[in-house]
Amino acid sequence: MNTERFNRQLDFLIEIDKVKHILRNTILMDASRKENDAEHSWHLALAALVLQEYLDEQNIDLTKVLQMVLIHDLVEIDAGDAFAYGNIDWEQQSQQEKLAAERIFGLLPLGQKQEFFDLWSEFEAAQTGEARYAKALDSFLPILHNYRTQGLQWQRLGVTREQVLNRNRRIEKASKQLWAYIVDLVDEAVAKGYLHP
Amino acid sequence: MNTERFNRQLDFLIEIDKVKHILRNTILMDASRKENDAEHSWHLALAALVLQEYLDEQNIDLTKVLQMVLIHDLVEIDAGDAFAYGNIDWEQQSQQEKLAAERIFGLLPLGQKQEFFDLWSEFEAAQTGEARYAKALDSFLPILHNYRTQGLQWQRLGVTREQVLNRNRRIEKASKQLWAYIVDLVDEAVAKGYLHP
Repeated sequence: MNTERFNRQLDFLIEIDKVKHILRNTILMDASRKENDAEHSWHLALAALVLQEYLDEQNIDLTKVLQMVLIHDLVEIDAGDAFAYGNIDWEQQSQQEKLAAERIFGLLPLGQKQEFFDLWSEFEAAQTGEARYAKALDSFLPILHNYRTQGLQWQRLGVTREQVLNRNRRIEKASKQLWAYIVDLVDEAVAKGYLHP
Repeated sequence: MNTERFNRQLDFLIEIDKVKHILRNTILMDASRKENDAEHSWHLALAALVLQEYLDEQNIDLTKVLQMVLIHDLVEIDAGDAFAYGNIDWEQQSQQEKLAAERIFGLLPLGQKQEFFDLWSEFEAAQTGEARYAKALDSFLPILHNYRTQGLQWQRLGVTREQVLNRNRRIEKASKQLWAYIVDLVDEAVAKGYLHP
């Protein structure tokens, strides 16, 4: 065993424990508390296993999708969670995340660093079937959480129907079926008063 | 889209949100609080991606390992977390977990239920390279957590060196290298007073 190499891998596994402290603007299904990034990433991976049949493009590499959703929020250790409907400078956020990716994946030995960095870049670019699926899930589950908690965070943060539909339209790029379901759910949320029209 | 089938899949994804509330006897690396099963499963998946090179058997299906670690603790929604060094009736625990697997995986459509049940059974039986790796990670990370928190839970619960070595020897079945590292770490923990001799 190459001790220096192994120690880098351990340092990485220890560093990413911090992801369990990064709170998101999503509330757990029982409305008890905010979700953190580790829980969210785990839930996306489970959703990736269960919902694949609804993708427009069936010929995708599921392992890659799992890897993407498992690592996609590691950059938030340094860059923090950006609220999807917030007044965010997305260009600046993107640059901070790139620096974060350099540092955090850079804890790993060179080959693994490059592999993780490439996976994360592919996810961010959203130009492959795998990345489109991962991005779609990253939009799909938070909407489900919001609906199940009667729009708790939508209400608190004054989110509108139009914002939800605009921000999450990327679901449609992966799956017309999942997107059709979400459009119906959003209309139901408005009808029930969970979401501003 | 088959609505009944899709609704079953959504029910499953909603049900498993409960995993985020199941606390383990592992303390986060910064000693702030207990870890939950969703965070733990996510961390195992990351470790599976990073540590594969240390396996004795290299020819394994990584996707299967990821699936196993992602779902291995879903049964604890019903059966609860059994403390590794506790005075547990493991036969009874195993039966409760089997009932839990029937109910929770049974929320899914039949084919997916069977697939998840088979993956979980294979993990539990620990007879394949994939299951041995998943089990080894499930032992490896908690020891690392305990060491990094200066044996906080080992001390609280009166765990001894012998218990740690006996209970986690399954690491050796997947990787002689990782096991050698753990034996050294356990001895270091004893020398530093983190763990009872």
